[in-house]
Amino acid sequence: MKTRHAILVAAAEVIHENGYSGASISKIMDRAGVTQGGMYFHFKSKEALAQAVMTSQQLFVDLPDAPDGLQRLVDMSFEIAAELRKNVLFRASVRLAVEQGEFGPNDDTAYVEWAHRFHRQLVAAQERGELLPSLDLWEFAKVLVGAYTGTQLYSNAASGRADLPQRLVWMWRFLLPALATPEAVAALTIGPSGSGAAA
Amino acid sequence: MKTRHAILVAAAEVIHENGYSGASISKIMDRAGVTQGGMYFHFKSKEALAQAVMTSQQLFVDLPDAPDGLQRLVDMSFEIAAELRKNVLFRASVRLAVEQGEFGPNDDTAYVEWAHRFHRQLVAAQERGELLPSLDLWEFAKVLVGAYTGTQLYSNAASGRADLPQRLVWMWRFLLPALATPEAVAALTIGPSGSGAAA
Repeated sequence: MKTRHAILVAAAEVIHENGYSGASISKIMDRAGVTQGGMYFHFKSKEALAQAVMTSQQLFVDLPDAPDGLQRLVDMSFEIAAELRKNVLFRASVRLAVEQGEFGPNDDTAYVEWAHRFHRQLVAAQERGELLPSLDLWEFAKVLVGAYTGTQLYSNAASGRADLPQRLVWMWRFLLPALATPEAVAALTIGPSGSGAAA
Repeated sequence: MKTRHAILVAAAEVIHENGYSGASISKIMDRAGVTQGGMYFHFKSKEALAQAVMTSQQLFVDLPDAPDGLQRLVDMSFEIAAELRKNVLFRASVRLAVEQGEFGPNDDTAYVEWAHRFHRQLVAAQERGELLPSLDLWEFAKVLVGAYTGTQLYSNAASGRADLPQRLVWMWRFLLPALATPEAVAALTIGPSGSGAAA
């Protein structure tokens, strides 16, 4: 398990630096300090390794703990934005999930794992009476993952993700009325933590 | 202008077939039937050519005409989904816009052009009294482009875009309450044209 983790971190670093097509198994072995035998025990090909990096996003981000519910869901979106800017392993993993055309698989694991994580907050929000009645929380979770993915891509193309927090404020402005009670929306802080008021 | 168009179409085809890293200027010249001089008159590098393909999405899709407004905006989203499934030039162009990491630029032209196109429908919808008061239509247009981009990517990973129409129905379900009057929402048909009722 420890070797596997070291290989995944090394692979994310090398893919970050060289892109998928420029990354090689031997570079990754050097970086991880593993032998060919150790590498092939865990991963049989560059494709398999890239797929593992892509589906290990939850391994690369460590979001702060907080009580579950709607505020936590909104806060997570801004915490993920901060991770995208400062955490190269996470960024490499996200990039692989988006650029799957380059290495082949159609694998939605990375998307589904985020949907599960958002869904958990939605269930808590529902239990706290923060949501509108008769919602399909799983549908909303999948819409949120899609909306988030494209928002961060557009922001990356527009500003290298510098304007991502502002775009997330807009995204929430147009998603919350279908999701939460007016009272719950009014009680939310929508912005990066420590930023004070919403942008 | 005719040669430039032929080169762009050939480049989109070759990039579709080989990916960006597998596409070569010489393959594209062969496909377009242009000389090296003709190519370099229009495009100085593979990067410049890929960037032109990426920013030519409006050239590759031909959406049906219809009266401007909210129904047109919703219909466009399903028409774009159909184009993504059947139109390889458009798909190659979209893929380049999303996979910019592979060839370098940070260029949001393709996103901004869609935002302009959606914005025009939003302005018409506002003039027809279909929208809620006090909206920033430009913000909504940008949120919609982001949400759409990520929704089609998630759908591509999950099902090769087979479930994109269903996911668009969900997307609209969670965006419309912040955008349009209840009367305008009730009057909408949300689904692929010719599909009858919404999925």
